[in-house]
Amino acid sequence: MKIIIVGATGTMGKYLTKALRNEHDVVTAATKEADVQIDITSTVSIENMYKQVGPFDALISTAGPTYVGPWSRMTDKEFRKGVEGKMMGQINLVLIGQHYINPKGSFALITGALTHEPQLNFANASAANGAVEGFVRAAAIELGNGIRINAVSPTVIEDSPQYFPYFPGDVPVTMQQLEFGFRKAIFGAGTGQVIKPY
Amino acid sequence: MKIIIVGATGTMGKYLTKALRNEHDVVTAATKEADVQIDITSTVSIENMYKQVGPFDALISTAGPTYVGPWSRMTDKEFRKGVEGKMMGQINLVLIGQHYINPKGSFALITGALTHEPQLNFANASAANGAVEGFVRAAAIELGNGIRINAVSPTVIEDSPQYFPYFPGDVPVTMQQLEFGFRKAIFGAGTGQVIKPY
Repeated sequence: MKIIIVGATGTMGKYLTKALRNEHDVVTAATKEADVQIDITSTVSIENMYKQVGPFDALISTAGPTYVGPWSRMTDKEFRKGVEGKMMGQINLVLIGQHYINPKGSFALITGALTHEPQLNFANASAANGAVEGFVRAAAIELGNGIRINAVSPTVIEDSPQYFPYFPGDVPVTMQQLEFGFRKAIFGAGTGQVIKPY
Repeated sequence: MKIIIVGATGTMGKYLTKALRNEHDVVTAATKEADVQIDITSTVSIENMYKQVGPFDALISTAGPTYVGPWSRMTDKEFRKGVEGKMMGQINLVLIGQHYINPKGSFALITGALTHEPQLNFANASAANGAVEGFVRAAAIELGNGIRINAVSPTVIEDSPQYFPYFPGDVPVTMQQLEFGFRKAIFGAGTGQVIKPY
């Protein structure tokens, strides 16, 4: 199976690349140091990535830039980081990618527990996650050719201990749990699901 | 209580204005033919509205422009209608309005059942709703001075029969149920809630 991993140089992307590349034809995509370059905030860049990669069977996205910071500094300007990044970046990966993906292929996007369990400083991520999850459910009833779409929604992740203090009481998701979530999204038969790998 | 109704000339806004204006000091806001003019896609226009109105106790938003149309025509461009309208329009009403609202005031935004129950042609609304609901939960733990925020999430509404064919099987929410939803949001004590008025 040919699998594109967007955000392949991040904490999650690196782990997933390592976990899947012995079994599958993995194409890494990131802003730099990857098989293909991509800036998910640009529809032109997304289109170029798909043209370079050609037909594929699955896309994993772990790319989720959002604004993290105190509420007092949260204005429209800061909010746009998550709107253009984690939200429209991922939505455009699907709106454009549906024209390149093979029949019965699937998209697996990243959201997170913040959709329903907010934490201070992360309102931008809560909104972006909510948008992506709403989109995933809607896209699932629109996509043709047996193409599926799901979201994987972890809590704070094991390999990002720098975030633990911001998620008091959240049991971190292990990297293997995260991997299993994406395996379910891609190799399972479900669509329109928000998969909580815990 | 001084209540601003944004989207006051729409189907929901008109009904709510009529229902509340005998009991409260209602200020209507809309693109035209209202007490105050507002374009919710402009942060400057939002700021101007608040400056004109002065301190207030509650804001009701029924303003939710989104793109409705076939999936085959859904690109980044069409998607922006809901991003700038129902999503960022309403989020900016809060991010800016928090500096003008009285202590213990409240915001009541509009979302809809499409967040969790998608229908064909409405992916843009599903995403915008999801974003607003995620934001509402996050803002509820950030807002100070006892200020509250909730969303009201109806299905298709009684007075918009032109939409019934797009919502097969959805029992329409009556205008009175919608009104009760907003009453709960504003006069109740809850915060961070998505109120389903049915």
